[in-house]
Amino acid sequence: MSRELTIRAIEGIPEIRPGADLAGVIATAAADDHLPLADGDVVVVTQKIVSKAENRLVAVDPDDPLSHKALVDDESVRVLRRRGQLVISETSHGFVCANAGVDLSNVEVGYAALLPEDSDRSARRIRDGIRARAGVEVAVIVSDTFGRPWRRGLTDVAIGCAGIGAILDHRGQHDTQGRELLVTEVAVVDELASAADLVLGKATGCPVAVIRGVDPSWLRRGEVRSELVRPASEDLFR
Amino acid sequence: MSRELTIRAIEGIPEIRPGADLAGVIATAAADDHLPLADGDVVVVTQKIVSKAENRLVAVDPDDPLSHKALVDDESVRVLRRRGQLVISETSHGFVCANAGVDLSNVEVGYAALLPEDSDRSARRIRDGIRARAGVEVAVIVSDTFGRPWRRGLTDVAIGCAGIGAILDHRGQHDTQGRELLVTEVAVVDELASAADLVLGKATGCPVAVIRGVDPSWLRRGEVRSELVRPASEDLFR
Repeated sequence: MSRELTIRAIEGIPEIRPGADLAGVIATAAADDHLPLADGDVVVVTQKIVSKAENRLVAVDPDDPLSHKALVDDESVRVLRRRGQLVISETSHGFVCANAGVDLSNVEVGYAALLPEDSDRSARRIRDGIRARAGVEVAVIVSDTFGRPWRRGLTDVAIGCAGIGAILDHRGQHDTQGRELLVTEVAVVDELASAADLVLGKATGCPVAVIRGVDPSWLRRGEVRSELVRPASEDLFR
Repeated sequence: MSRELTIRAIEGIPEIRPGADLAGVIATAAADDHLPLADGDVVVVTQKIVSKAENRLVAVDPDDPLSHKALVDDESVRVLRRRGQLVISETSHGFVCANAGVDLSNVEVGYAALLPEDSDRSARRIRDGIRARAGVEVAVIVSDTFGRPWRRGLTDVAIGCAGIGAILDHRGQHDTQGRELLVTEVAVVDELASAADLVLGKATGCPVAVIRGVDPSWLRRGEVRSELVRPASEDLFR
Protein backbone atom coordinates (compact mmCIF):
# COMPACT_ATOMS: atom_id res chain seq x y z
CA MET A 1 0.00 0.00 0.00
CA SER A 2 1.28 3.40 -0.95
CA ARG A 3 1.47 5.85 1.97
CA GLU A 4 1.38 9.10 0.06
CA LEU A 5 -0.22 10.33 -3.13
CA THR A 6 -0.16 13.67 -4.88
CA ILE A 7 -2.93 14.83 -7.19
CA ARG A 8 -2.38 17.70 -9.56
CA ALA A 9 -4.42 19.38 -12.27
CA ILE A 10 -2.62 19.90 -15.56
CA GLU A 11 -3.13 23.42 -16.80
CA GLY A 12 -2.88 24.63 -20.36
CA ILE A 13 -4.93 21.95 -22.13
CA PRO A 14 -6.40 23.78 -25.14
CA GLU A 15 -9.98 23.42 -26.40
CA ILE A 16 -10.17 19.93 -27.91
CA ARG A 17 -11.48 19.51 -31.46
CA PRO A 18 -12.62 16.31 -33.17
CA GLY A 19 -9.61 14.29 -34.26
CA ALA A 20 -7.26 15.89 -31.72
CA ASP A 21 -4.28 13.81 -30.61
CA LEU A 22 -5.25 13.70 -26.92
CA ALA A 23 -2.19 11.76 -25.79
CA GLY A 24 0.11 14.28 -27.43
CA VAL A 25 -1.84 17.24 -26.07
CA ILE A 26 -1.73 15.82 -22.52
CA ALA A 27 1.95 14.86 -22.59
CA THR A 28 2.91 18.29 -23.95
CA ALA A 29 0.73 20.21 -21.50
CA ALA A 30 2.09 18.21 -18.55
CA ALA A 31 5.68 18.92 -19.57
CA ASP A 32 4.94 22.62 -20.17
CA ASP A 33 3.26 22.72 -16.74
CA HIS A 34 6.48 21.47 -15.09
CA LEU A 35 5.01 18.03 -14.40
CA PRO A 36 6.37 15.76 -17.15
CA LEU A 37 4.56 12.42 -17.01
CA ALA A 38 6.48 9.60 -15.35
CA ASP A 39 6.23 5.81 -15.20
CA GLY A 40 3.46 4.77 -12.80
CA ASP A 41 1.47 8.02 -12.98
CA VAL A 42 -2.29 7.70 -13.19
CA VAL A 43 -3.65 10.18 -15.74
CA VAL A 44 -7.33 10.97 -15.19
CA VAL A 45 -9.04 12.42 -18.27
CA THR A 46 -12.58 13.73 -18.05
CA GLN A 47 -15.07 12.25 -20.49
CA LYS A 48 -15.94 15.51 -22.20
CA ILE A 49 -12.60 15.97 -23.95
CA VAL A 50 -12.47 12.29 -24.90
CA SER A 51 -15.92 12.60 -26.50
CA LYS A 52 -14.82 15.76 -28.31
CA ALA A 53 -11.60 14.18 -29.63
CA GLU A 54 -13.60 11.16 -30.80
CA ASN A 55 -16.18 13.41 -32.44
CA ARG A 56 -19.06 12.14 -30.32
CA LEU A 57 -20.81 15.48 -30.79
CA VAL A 58 -24.34 15.63 -32.09
CA ALA A 59 -26.29 18.70 -33.15
CA VAL A 60 -29.22 19.62 -30.92
CA ASP A 61 -31.67 22.48 -31.13
CA PRO A 62 -30.86 24.58 -28.02
CA ASP A 63 -34.41 25.99 -28.03
CA ASP A 64 -36.14 22.61 -28.21
CA PRO A 65 -35.87 20.37 -25.13
CA LEU A 66 -37.35 17.50 -27.16
CA SER A 67 -34.22 17.50 -29.29
CA HIS A 68 -32.13 16.62 -26.21
CA LYS A 69 -34.75 14.18 -24.98
CA ALA A 70 -34.72 12.26 -28.28
CA LEU A 71 -30.96 11.83 -27.98
CA VAL A 72 -31.28 10.54 -24.42
CA ASP A 73 -33.88 8.01 -25.56
CA ASP A 74 -31.58 6.91 -28.41
CA GLU A 75 -28.67 6.37 -26.01
CA SER A 76 -30.74 4.43 -23.44
CA VAL A 77 -31.26 0.70 -23.59
CA ARG A 78 -33.46 0.66 -20.48
CA VAL A 79 -35.13 3.51 -18.58
CA LEU A 80 -35.10 2.97 -14.81
CA ARG A 81 -36.79 6.17 -13.63
CA ARG A 82 -38.21 9.33 -15.14
CA ARG A 83 -39.09 12.48 -13.20
CA GLY A 84 -39.73 15.71 -15.07
CA GLN A 85 -36.77 16.40 -17.37
CA LEU A 86 -34.59 13.84 -15.58
CA VAL A 87 -34.18 10.32 -16.95
CA ILE A 88 -32.16 7.67 -15.13
CA SER A 89 -31.33 5.03 -17.67
CA GLU A 90 -28.95 2.29 -18.59
CA THR A 91 -26.67 2.91 -21.56
CA SER A 92 -25.43 0.36 -24.08
CA HIS A 93 -22.18 0.23 -22.03
CA GLY A 94 -24.14 -0.89 -18.95
CA PHE A 95 -23.72 2.41 -17.09
CA VAL A 96 -26.73 3.63 -15.13
CA CYS A 97 -26.72 7.40 -15.04
CA ALA A 98 -28.72 10.56 -15.63
CA ASN A 99 -29.74 11.32 -19.20
CA ALA A 100 -27.70 8.39 -20.57
CA GLY A 101 -24.58 10.52 -20.20
CA VAL A 102 -25.73 12.96 -22.91
CA ASP A 103 -24.32 16.27 -21.78
CA LEU A 104 -24.62 19.89 -22.90
CA SER A 105 -22.21 21.62 -20.52
CA ASN A 106 -18.78 22.71 -21.71
CA VAL A 107 -19.80 21.85 -25.27
CA GLU A 108 -20.36 24.40 -28.03
CA VAL A 109 -23.94 25.72 -28.01
CA GLY A 110 -26.04 23.71 -30.46
CA TYR A 111 -24.23 20.45 -29.72
CA ALA A 112 -24.45 17.67 -27.13
CA ALA A 113 -21.65 15.27 -26.23
CA LEU A 114 -22.37 11.54 -26.13
CA LEU A 115 -20.29 9.13 -24.07
CA PRO A 116 -17.36 7.54 -25.92
CA GLU A 117 -18.39 4.36 -27.73
CA ASP A 118 -15.96 2.31 -25.64
CA SER A 119 -14.23 4.26 -22.87
CA ASP A 120 -11.85 1.41 -22.02
CA ARG A 121 -10.62 1.49 -25.61
CA SER A 122 -10.35 5.29 -25.36
CA ALA A 123 -8.20 4.90 -22.23
CA ARG A 124 -6.00 2.30 -23.94
CA ARG A 125 -5.46 4.61 -26.92
CA ILE A 126 -4.43 7.49 -24.70
CA ARG A 127 -2.12 5.23 -22.72
CA ASP A 128 -0.53 3.84 -25.90
CA GLY A 129 -0.21 7.36 -27.32
CA ILE A 130 1.53 8.64 -24.19
CA ARG A 131 3.95 5.71 -24.33
CA ALA A 132 4.68 6.48 -27.97
CA ARG A 133 5.08 10.22 -27.49
CA ALA A 134 6.66 10.53 -24.05
CA GLY A 135 8.21 7.08 -23.56
CA VAL A 136 6.49 6.47 -20.21
CA GLU A 137 4.12 3.79 -18.94
CA VAL A 138 1.14 5.49 -17.30
CA ALA A 139 -2.28 4.26 -16.33
CA VAL A 140 -5.25 6.14 -17.79
CA ILE A 141 -8.74 6.59 -16.35
CA VAL A 142 -11.59 8.23 -18.27
CA SER A 143 -13.89 9.82 -15.70
CA ASP A 144 -17.43 11.15 -15.70
CA THR A 145 -19.73 12.72 -13.13
CA PHE A 146 -22.57 10.50 -11.96
CA GLY A 147 -25.25 10.73 -9.30
CA ARG A 148 -26.34 7.85 -7.12
CA PRO A 149 -29.39 6.86 -5.11
CA TRP A 150 -29.67 7.57 -1.38
CA ARG A 151 -27.05 10.32 -1.25
CA ARG A 152 -27.26 13.85 -2.60
CA GLY A 153 -24.57 15.32 -4.76
CA LEU A 154 -22.51 13.85 -7.57
CA THR A 155 -19.09 12.23 -7.59
CA ASP A 156 -16.71 11.44 -10.40
CA VAL A 157 -16.40 7.78 -11.33
CA ALA A 158 -14.40 5.83 -13.89
CA ILE A 159 -16.08 4.94 -17.18
CA GLY A 160 -12.92 3.50 -18.71
CA CYS A 161 -9.40 2.55 -17.69
CA ALA A 162 -6.16 1.10 -19.03
CA GLY A 163 -2.98 -0.02 -17.30
CA ILE A 164 -4.70 -0.31 -13.92
CA GLY A 165 -7.13 -2.82 -12.46
CA ALA A 166 -10.62 -1.39 -11.99
CA ILE A 167 -11.15 -3.43 -8.84
CA LEU A 168 -8.67 -4.15 -6.07
CA ASP A 169 -9.45 -7.61 -4.80
CA HIS A 170 -8.69 -8.36 -1.15
CA ARG A 171 -10.16 -11.86 -1.18
CA GLY A 172 -8.15 -14.16 1.00
CA GLN A 173 -6.55 -11.30 2.95
CA HIS A 174 -7.04 -11.05 6.70
CA ASP A 175 -7.76 -8.22 9.10
CA THR A 176 -5.62 -7.22 12.07
CA GLN A 177 -7.44 -9.89 14.12
CA GLY A 178 -6.60 -12.65 11.64
CA ARG A 179 -10.16 -12.90 10.31
CA GLU A 180 -10.80 -13.09 6.60
CA LEU A 181 -11.84 -9.67 5.27
CA LEU A 182 -15.51 -9.20 4.42
CA VAL A 183 -14.84 -6.10 2.35
CA THR A 184 -13.16 -7.76 -0.54
CA GLU A 185 -13.48 -5.60 -3.61
CA VAL A 186 -12.56 -1.93 -3.71
CA ALA A 187 -13.42 0.11 -6.80
CA VAL A 188 -10.05 1.87 -6.90
CA VAL A 189 -10.57 3.48 -10.30
CA ASP A 190 -13.73 5.15 -8.98
CA GLU A 191 -11.82 6.36 -5.93
CA LEU A 192 -9.04 7.69 -8.18
CA ALA A 193 -11.59 9.45 -10.41
CA SER A 194 -13.17 11.07 -7.33
CA ALA A 195 -9.75 12.10 -6.04
CA ALA A 196 -8.92 13.74 -9.37
CA ASP A 197 -12.18 15.69 -9.36
CA LEU A 198 -11.02 17.47 -6.21
CA VAL A 199 -8.55 19.47 -8.33
CA LEU A 200 -10.71 19.74 -11.49
CA GLY A 201 -13.30 22.48 -11.24
CA LYS A 202 -16.57 21.94 -13.08
CA ALA A 203 -16.60 25.59 -14.11
CA THR A 204 -12.93 26.08 -15.01
CA GLY A 205 -12.96 23.34 -17.61
CA CYS A 206 -9.60 21.91 -16.51
CA PRO A 207 -9.98 18.35 -17.83
CA VAL A 208 -6.87 16.34 -16.82
CA ALA A 209 -5.25 15.46 -13.50
CA VAL A 210 -2.22 13.36 -12.66
CA ILE A 211 -2.10 11.17 -9.56
CA ARG A 212 1.40 10.17 -8.53
CA GLY A 213 2.40 7.52 -6.02
CA VAL A 214 -0.18 4.75 -6.42
CA ASP A 215 0.79 1.28 -5.35
CA PRO A 216 2.68 -0.32 -8.27
CA SER A 217 0.80 -3.58 -7.69
CA TRP A 218 -2.40 -1.87 -8.87
CA LEU A 219 -0.91 -1.27 -12.31
CA ARG A 220 -2.01 -4.18 -14.45
CA ARG A 221 -4.29 -4.82 -17.39
CA GLY A 222 -7.73 -3.61 -16.37
CA GLU A 223 -11.11 -2.62 -17.74
CA VAL A 224 -14.16 -0.87 -16.34
CA ARG A 225 -16.65 -2.67 -18.51
CA SER A 226 -15.78 -6.27 -17.58
CA GLU A 227 -14.70 -5.64 -13.98
CA LEU A 228 -16.75 -2.82 -12.59
CA VAL A 229 -20.06 -2.63 -14.45
CA ARG A 230 -22.50 -4.80 -12.52
CA PRO A 231 -24.67 -6.95 -14.78
CA ALA A 232 -28.39 -6.39 -14.25
CA SER A 233 -28.71 -10.07 -13.30
CA GLU A 234 -26.63 -9.60 -10.12
CA ASP A 235 -28.00 -6.16 -9.28
CA LEU A 236 -30.50 -5.92 -6.42
CA PHE A 237 -31.83 -2.59 -7.70
CA ARG A 238 -32.72 -3.32 -11.32
CA MET B 1 -10.00 25.65 -6.94
CA SER B 2 -6.91 24.09 -5.50
CA ARG B 3 -4.49 22.74 -8.12
CA GLU B 4 -2.62 20.24 -6.02
CA LEU B 5 -3.45 17.98 -3.10
CA THR B 6 -1.37 15.54 -1.11
CA ILE B 7 -2.87 12.58 0.71
CA ARG B 8 -0.92 10.77 3.38
CA ALA B 9 -1.64 7.93 5.76
CA ILE B 10 -0.67 8.58 9.38
CA GLU B 11 1.23 5.64 10.78
CA GLY B 12 1.58 4.69 14.40
CA ILE B 13 -2.06 4.97 15.51
CA PRO B 14 -2.34 2.40 18.33
CA GLU B 15 -5.26 0.01 18.84
CA ILE B 16 -8.15 2.22 20.00
CA ARG B 17 -10.02 1.31 23.20
CA PRO B 18 -13.38 2.62 24.42
CA GLY B 19 -12.95 6.08 25.89
CA ALA B 20 -9.76 6.82 23.96
CA ASP B 21 -8.98 10.47 23.27
CA LEU B 22 -9.01 10.17 19.48
CA ALA B 23 -8.09 13.79 18.81
CA GLY B 24 -5.04 13.49 21.06
CA VAL B 25 -4.02 10.15 19.56
CA ILE B 26 -4.29 11.52 16.01
CA ALA B 27 -2.47 14.79 16.71
CA THR B 28 0.35 12.95 18.48
CA ALA B 29 0.71 10.26 15.84
CA ALA B 30 0.77 12.86 13.06
CA ALA B 31 3.52 14.82 14.80
CA ASP B 32 5.52 11.65 15.52
CA ASP B 33 5.10 10.66 11.86
CA HIS B 34 6.72 13.97 10.76
CA LEU B 35 3.43 15.39 9.53
CA PRO B 36 2.22 17.73 12.29
CA LEU B 37 -1.35 18.80 11.55
CA ALA B 38 -1.72 22.27 10.07
CA ASP B 39 -4.55 24.75 9.55
CA GLY B 40 -6.72 23.72 6.61
CA ASP B 41 -5.80 20.03 6.67
CA VAL B 42 -8.64 17.57 6.14
CA VAL B 43 -8.28 14.67 8.57
CA VAL B 44 -10.13 11.56 7.39
CA VAL B 45 -10.85 9.08 10.20
CA THR B 46 -12.31 5.67 9.41
CA GLN B 47 -15.50 4.76 11.21
CA LYS B 48 -14.11 1.72 12.98
CA ILE B 49 -11.84 3.61 15.37
CA VAL B 50 -14.54 6.21 16.02
CA SER B 51 -16.97 3.43 16.95
CA LYS B 52 -14.34 1.85 19.19
CA ALA B 53 -13.51 5.11 20.97
CA GLU B 54 -17.22 5.74 21.49
CA ASN B 55 -17.73 2.20 22.76
CA ARG B 56 -20.17 1.22 20.04
CA LEU B 57 -19.08 -2.40 20.44
CA VAL B 58 -21.64 -5.10 21.04
CA ALA B 59 -21.00 -8.73 21.95
CA VAL B 60 -21.93 -11.27 19.28
CA ASP B 61 -21.61 -15.03 19.24
CA PRO B 62 -19.00 -15.67 16.54
CA ASP B 63 -20.42 -19.17 15.98
CA ASP B 64 -24.03 -18.03 15.57
CA PRO B 65 -24.84 -16.03 12.43
CA LEU B 66 -28.25 -15.22 13.90
CA SER B 67 -26.54 -13.17 16.57
CA HIS B 68 -25.14 -10.82 13.90
CA LYS B 69 -28.42 -10.85 12.01
CA ALA B 70 -30.37 -9.75 15.09
CA LEU B 71 -28.05 -6.77 15.48
CA VAL B 72 -28.50 -5.80 11.82
CA ASP B 73 -32.28 -5.95 12.24
CA ASP B 74 -32.03 -3.77 15.38
CA GLU B 75 -29.98 -1.16 13.55
CA SER B 76 -32.26 -1.05 10.49
CA VAL B 77 -35.27 1.20 10.23
CA ARG B 78 -36.21 -0.09 6.76
CA VAL B 79 -34.98 -3.11 4.83
CA LEU B 80 -34.63 -2.41 1.11
CA ARG B 81 -33.30 -5.76 -0.12
CA ARG B 82 -32.33 -9.10 1.33
CA ARG B 83 -30.32 -11.79 -0.48
CA GLY B 84 -28.82 -14.67 1.47
CA GLN B 85 -26.77 -13.23 4.35
CA LEU B 86 -26.74 -9.77 2.79
CA VAL B 87 -29.20 -7.11 3.95
CA ILE B 88 -29.36 -3.67 2.33
CA SER B 89 -31.14 -1.43 4.77
CA GLU B 90 -31.64 2.12 5.90
CA THR B 91 -30.21 3.05 9.29
CA SER B 92 -31.63 5.52 11.80
CA HIS B 93 -29.13 8.06 10.40
CA GLY B 94 -30.68 7.71 6.93
CA PHE B 95 -27.71 5.84 5.45
CA VAL B 96 -28.51 3.03 3.06
CA CYS B 97 -25.81 0.37 3.27
CA ALA B 98 -25.06 -3.32 3.72
CA ASN B 99 -25.91 -4.85 7.09
CA ALA B 100 -26.86 -1.46 8.57
CA GLY B 101 -23.16 -0.70 8.98
CA VAL B 102 -22.74 -3.46 11.60
CA ASP B 103 -19.22 -4.71 11.02
CA LEU B 104 -17.09 -7.54 12.34
CA SER B 105 -13.77 -6.88 10.60
CA ASN B 106 -10.87 -5.31 12.51
CA VAL B 107 -12.85 -5.72 15.74
CA GLU B 108 -11.95 -8.15 18.53
CA VAL B 109 -13.47 -11.59 17.92
CA GLY B 110 -16.79 -11.85 19.78
CA TYR B 111 -17.72 -8.22 19.13
CA ALA B 112 -19.33 -6.22 16.36
CA ALA B 113 -18.95 -2.48 15.81
CA LEU B 114 -22.06 -0.35 15.27
CA LEU B 115 -21.94 2.99 13.46
CA PRO B 116 -21.43 6.02 15.71
CA GLU B 117 -24.72 7.39 17.02
CA ASP B 118 -24.12 10.71 15.29
CA SER B 119 -21.03 10.78 13.06
CA ASP B 120 -21.26 14.54 12.44
CA ARG B 121 -21.04 15.06 16.20
CA SER B 122 -18.12 12.60 16.32
CA ALA B 123 -16.35 14.64 13.63
CA ARG B 124 -17.02 17.88 15.52
CA ARG B 125 -15.59 16.41 18.71
CA ILE B 126 -12.41 15.28 16.97
CA ARG B 127 -12.06 18.68 15.30
CA ASP B 128 -12.57 20.51 18.60
CA GLY B 129 -10.14 18.15 20.32
CA ILE B 130 -7.45 18.73 17.70
CA ARG B 131 -7.90 22.49 18.04
CA ALA B 132 -7.56 22.19 21.83
CA ARG B 133 -4.53 19.88 21.73
CA ALA B 134 -2.59 21.06 18.68
CA GLY B 135 -3.87 24.60 18.22
CA VAL B 136 -4.85 24.08 14.58
CA GLU B 137 -8.11 24.38 12.66
CA VAL B 138 -8.63 21.23 10.64
CA ALA B 139 -11.65 19.74 8.93
CA VAL B 140 -12.61 16.20 9.95
CA ILE B 141 -14.40 13.54 7.91
CA VAL B 142 -15.56 10.23 9.38
CA SER B 143 -15.51 7.68 6.55
CA ASP B 144 -16.98 4.26 5.99
CA THR B 145 -16.94 1.73 3.15
CA PHE B 146 -20.24 1.37 1.29
CA GLY B 147 -21.40 -0.47 -1.80
CA ARG B 148 -23.75 0.96 -4.37
CA PRO B 149 -26.15 -0.34 -7.00
CA TRP B 150 -25.13 -0.75 -10.65
CA ARG B 151 -21.39 -0.82 -10.06
CA ARG B 152 -19.28 -3.54 -8.50
CA GLY B 153 -16.83 -2.83 -5.74
CA LEU B 154 -16.99 -0.58 -2.72
CA THR B 155 -15.81 2.96 -2.19
CA ASP B 156 -15.28 4.98 0.96
CA VAL B 157 -17.84 7.70 1.63
CA ALA B 158 -18.33 10.28 4.37
CA ILE B 159 -20.73 9.45 7.19
CA GLY B 160 -19.88 12.57 9.19
CA CYS B 161 -17.97 15.81 8.78
CA ALA B 162 -17.03 19.00 10.58
CA GLY B 163 -15.33 22.17 9.42
CA ILE B 164 -16.07 21.44 5.76
CA GLY B 165 -19.21 21.60 3.66
CA ALA B 166 -20.49 18.18 2.65
CA ILE B 167 -21.70 19.50 -0.69
CA LEU B 168 -20.00 21.98 -2.99
CA ASP B 169 -22.74 23.95 -4.65
CA HIS B 170 -22.04 25.31 -8.14
CA ARG B 171 -25.51 26.71 -8.71
CA GLY B 172 -25.37 29.95 -10.65
CA GLN B 173 -21.89 29.22 -12.01
CA HIS B 174 -21.31 29.00 -15.75
CA ASP B 175 -19.34 26.69 -17.99
CA THR B 176 -16.60 27.73 -20.43
CA GLN B 177 -19.36 28.49 -23.00
CA GLY B 178 -21.20 30.83 -20.63
CA ARG B 179 -24.05 28.36 -20.04
CA GLU B 180 -25.33 27.76 -16.55
CA LEU B 181 -23.87 24.51 -15.17
CA LEU B 182 -26.20 21.53 -14.99
CA VAL B 183 -23.97 19.65 -12.56
CA THR B 184 -24.55 21.79 -9.56
CA GLU B 185 -23.84 19.78 -6.43
CA VAL B 186 -20.63 17.84 -5.86
CA ALA B 187 -20.36 15.55 -2.84
CA VAL B 188 -16.83 16.69 -1.97
CA VAL B 189 -16.70 14.92 1.39
CA ASP B 190 -17.43 11.62 -0.36
CA GLU B 191 -14.69 12.37 -2.89
CA LEU B 192 -12.27 13.21 -0.06
CA ALA B 193 -13.19 9.99 1.79
CA SER B 194 -12.55 7.99 -1.40
CA ALA B 195 -9.24 9.78 -1.93
CA ALA B 196 -8.14 8.94 1.62
CA ASP B 197 -8.99 5.26 1.15
CA LEU B 198 -6.33 5.09 -1.58
CA VAL B 199 -3.64 5.26 1.12
CA LEU B 200 -5.55 3.30 3.82
CA GLY B 201 -5.32 -0.45 3.28
CA LYS B 202 -8.29 -2.50 4.42
CA ALA B 203 -5.93 -5.17 5.72
CA THR B 204 -3.26 -3.00 7.33
CA GLY B 205 -5.71 -1.31 9.67
CA CYS B 206 -4.20 2.14 9.11
CA PRO B 207 -7.20 4.28 10.06
CA VAL B 208 -6.33 7.96 9.51
CA ALA B 209 -5.22 10.00 6.50
CA VAL B 210 -4.48 13.68 6.08
CA ILE B 211 -5.34 15.56 2.90
CA ARG B 212 -3.48 18.81 2.46
CA GLY B 213 -4.20 21.57 -0.01
CA VAL B 214 -7.99 21.67 -0.32
CA ASP B 215 -9.57 24.90 -1.47
CA PRO B 216 -9.98 27.11 1.62
CA SER B 217 -13.45 28.13 0.45
CA TRP B 218 -14.65 24.56 1.13
CA LEU B 219 -13.86 24.93 4.83
CA ARG B 220 -17.09 26.01 6.47
CA ARG B 221 -19.64 24.62 8.85
CA GLY B 222 -20.95 21.41 7.31
CA GLU B 223 -22.79 18.23 8.09
CA VAL B 224 -23.38 14.96 6.27
CA ARG B 225 -26.76 14.30 7.79
CA SER B 226 -28.52 17.51 6.75
CA GLU B 227 -26.66 18.12 3.49
CA LEU B 228 -25.80 14.79 1.95
CA VAL B 229 -28.27 12.18 3.16
CA ARG B 230 -31.11 12.12 0.64
CA PRO B 231 -34.53 11.93 2.26
CA ALA B 232 -36.58 8.94 1.08
CA SER B 233 -39.21 11.40 -0.21
CA GLU B 234 -36.86 12.80 -2.87
CA ASP B 235 -35.20 9.47 -3.67
CA LEU B 236 -36.19 7.76 -6.94
CA PHE B 237 -34.98 4.36 -5.67
CA ARG B 238 -36.79 3.94 -2.35
